[in-house]
Amino acid sequence: MTRVVIIGGGAAGMAAASRVKRLRKDFDVVVFERTPYVSFALCGIPYLAGCTVKTLDELLYYPPEFFVKKRGIDLRLRTKVTKIDPSGKTLTYKNLETGEEGELEWDYLVLAPGARSRAPEIWPEIKELENVFYITHLDSGERIRSYALKLKHGSKAVIVGAGYVGLEMAENLSNLGMKVTVVEALPHVAPRTLDPDYAEIVEQHLKEKGVEVITGAPVKEFKAVNGKAKAIVTDKGEIEGDLFVVGVGIRPNTELAQQIGARIGETGAIWVDEKLRTSVKDVYAVGDAVEHTDIVTGRRVWRPFAPVANKMGYIAGSVIAGRDAVFMGSVGTSTFKTFDMVVARTGLSAEEAKKLGYNVEVASLEGYTKAHYIPGRTKVYLRVIADTDTGRLLGAQSVGATETVLWRINVIASLLTVKATVWDLFFSDIGYAPPLAPVWDPLIIAARLLMRKLGERPRKQ
Amino acid sequence: MTRVVIIGGGAAGMAAASRVKRLRKDFDVVVFERTPYVSFALCGIPYLAGCTVKTLDELLYYPPEFFVKKRGIDLRLRTKVTKIDPSGKTLTYKNLETGEEGELEWDYLVLAPGARSRAPEIWPEIKELENVFYITHLDSGERIRSYALKLKHGSKAVIVGAGYVGLEMAENLSNLGMKVTVVEALPHVAPRTLDPDYAEIVEQHLKEKGVEVITGAPVKEFKAVNGKAKAIVTDKGEIEGDLFVVGVGIRPNTELAQQIGARIGETGAIWVDEKLRTSVKDVYAVGDAVEHTDIVTGRRVWRPFAPVANKMGYIAGSVIAGRDAVFMGSVGTSTFKTFDMVVARTGLSAEEAKKLGYNVEVASLEGYTKAHYIPGRTKVYLRVIADTDTGRLLGAQSVGATETVLWRINVIASLLTVKATVWDLFFSDIGYAPPLAPVWDPLIIAARLLMRKLGERPRKQ
Repeated sequence: MTRVVIIGGGAAGMAAASRVKRLRKDFDVVVFERTPYVSFALCGIPYLAGCTVKTLDELLYYPPEFFVKKRGIDLRLRTKVTKIDPSGKTLTYKNLETGEEGELEWDYLVLAPGARSRAPEIWPEIKELENVFYITHLDSGERIRSYALKLKHGSKAVIVGAGYVGLEMAENLSNLGMKVTVVEALPHVAPRTLDPDYAEIVEQHLKEKGVEVITGAPVKEFKAVNGKAKAIVTDKGEIEGDLFVVGVGIRPNTELAQQIGARIGETGAIWVDEKLRTSVKDVYAVGDAVEHTDIVTGRRVWRPFAPVANKMGYIAGSVIAGRDAVFMGSVGTSTFKTFDMVVARTGLSAEEAKKLGYNVEVASLEGYTKAHYIPGRTKVYLRVIADTDTGRLLGAQSVGATETVLWRINVIASLLTVKATVWDLFFSDIGYAPPLAPVWDPLIIAARLLMRKLGERPRKQ
Repeated sequence: MTRVVIIGGGAAGMAAASRVKRLRKDFDVVVFERTPYVSFALCGIPYLAGCTVKTLDELLYYPPEFFVKKRGIDLRLRTKVTKIDPSGKTLTYKNLETGEEGELEWDYLVLAPGARSRAPEIWPEIKELENVFYITHLDSGERIRSYALKLKHGSKAVIVGAGYVGLEMAENLSNLGMKVTVVEALPHVAPRTLDPDYAEIVEQHLKEKGVEVITGAPVKEFKAVNGKAKAIVTDKGEIEGDLFVVGVGIRPNTELAQQIGARIGETGAIWVDEKLRTSVKDVYAVGDAVEHTDIVTGRRVWRPFAPVANKMGYIAGSVIAGRDAVFMGSVGTSTFKTFDMVVARTGLSAEEAKKLGYNVEVASLEGYTKAHYIPGRTKVYLRVIADTDTGRLLGAQSVGATETVLWRINVIASLLTVKATVWDLFFSDIGYAPPLAPVWDPLIIAARLLMRKLGERPRKQ
């Protein structure tokens, strides 16, 4: 009997496990997971903290029994893999509740160890502070909520980091009645997603919603009294609070991969080939600990995003089950919502593209979501970046109080996947109806603006 | 001085006029338009009828003075072109108000005559009936509204045709307090947009909104008393009403093109090449009277849709102004909203593809708009059609009570434009955030289902 062992029961690991079992019922599929949960939606944690999601169980895509009973997967919860022997194809494990240890043989191994917060490395003092939180797992959401709900209405939450986790937390903690301050080390919010002028629109929205935003303020330390943080210290002064959430910085869990001598890539994440094989025979890796190829630039990138992790799991499972599958990569789409504002980007920013040696043409515009005569239309800011030399699309950013912000970016993302051009965008046949879109959609206007510089005639690629 | 004369001041004509003038300020640009309006949004008529739009003027993208004063275009409103001499490059015109006639020389001519309702050809009796309406121009919306508002609340509107105009009218006349019946000759609603099972979802929604739907019932005649229609006669019996709107059938206005001997294409619309030139020297044609190439099949198609018309105008204007531009075609995206239901499709249906000789693979699924744990998610029905032999995407349809229905179709539309495959769709990096999309978007699930049949390995095209 062939045995596939998966280390890590998150989205990527369970996608791989499910896929193998679906294609090869005769394979023995074992998943080791340190927590009591599998198939968990870590992205839901801010919504658990903010009571949008009532219970932790709702954040599981399926309960553990589903995988055992319906899919025939051997789940070993609360169990840690302590050592892997890649040549002997065995591993040792330890049950974290009972202390029981054991050894298991495997034919194929899938590493799906995920990523972890860098917060306790950066500020070791916070490990001892009862009112400072960073995301370790699903229960972090519950712990933040229960602490917040014990505080008086109007108590002060300080969020360190204005990336997507920080800004989702800002909305959710406001919803709990807290007064929220967001502190960002870099000069503007959403620094990995948006250009400064688009970030300014988001910052303005946060302020309108009563959130204080302090940028360009790296946190030096947490000041504490009696096991509780009282303030953070920054160049821009001390910022006091009753509850602190650190939403900055994660790193890939590469320890097991390093232990077996698997290659670590230039990004610091686990290297894999297009079949998601590590450099060690019959050992695969998937999910947030793994790097992959950016389709736009061909470079290696580390993108710990759930859709990438899920696709990796699916493809690795297919390969192990004997299918001829490859993971083609991603283009770097990311999105989030904070209060009513939706933020999305894909591909490269103009600055990133220039640093990589591209000559770039940029179109920026303000458009609307509906025909001008339909009430309730919403403004959309859209920026599209193209390669001057070839007319190839390189990236886009958008912000606005409408979910169509994400979808305009999704159209560009799909075009980036196939290395499409400005002319392909112009002739993309975006549907029109007065209550759904303007006749000249911002996407098509962006293409038209780029064609002013690049010419109307499509160039052969 | 070079003179460009445009016949027809709708979206396509004004796009061409504006583009020429923008690139060549030294050109004389003259637009002949029979109505008092230019740059009108005919798609807004149902919303004018239903009081969503208060005044006809709101349906003009710009007032006529804008084109005269800001863009330097010579507008001849209420003026009809009576004869064109293509060899002498002159035309004669007549002012419909003053009766004044004149002659004008031209260097380039652009035909933008639009399309018209076939209703009075099919049922000549309706021309004399004061309570039967079909769309002739913007004022049709005002006339329907003023007639409807004179009737008692709860009076009965009968709409002939369950295409997008009919179903938009159904919503808008319901909003005015009328009891609405929609009568469709074909076996289901939205017959040119949706497969029968998806049409059934829309029909169910209409019924929930209090609209009576009668399908498979071609209208034989209108029964009238004293200049007012009382009922329509169908195979399924007589259907009585107080107000009738005919929303079926339009045909391209090809008379002027035929008069100058311009080629009429296989679709019955005016033939043009990729530079939007008719078969007559220096005569161009754009908009709803003109056929073009379908990017998916390479066939000639007639698609009287506003985005296509606008792009044609833009490209024809660019060409006349000396730019090297081409109109690449469209893929056949159409969309509409009726009540809370959004309908969209692009490319071919499975039936259409089979008739054209394709072997097709179809994925149909029900998905959701948000992560499972976020309240308020909406169900989305999505069907994607692919070519079994090559893996190329061929088309898609979607329905659901969310504007993201259109946007999922827009992603497929953009991929159709570049002849992309099922594997390109799978690796399209659709953004994920819990309140905005599920981690496995219905689009990606559709690709995954198709890959079960087509294999996981991307095929070279």
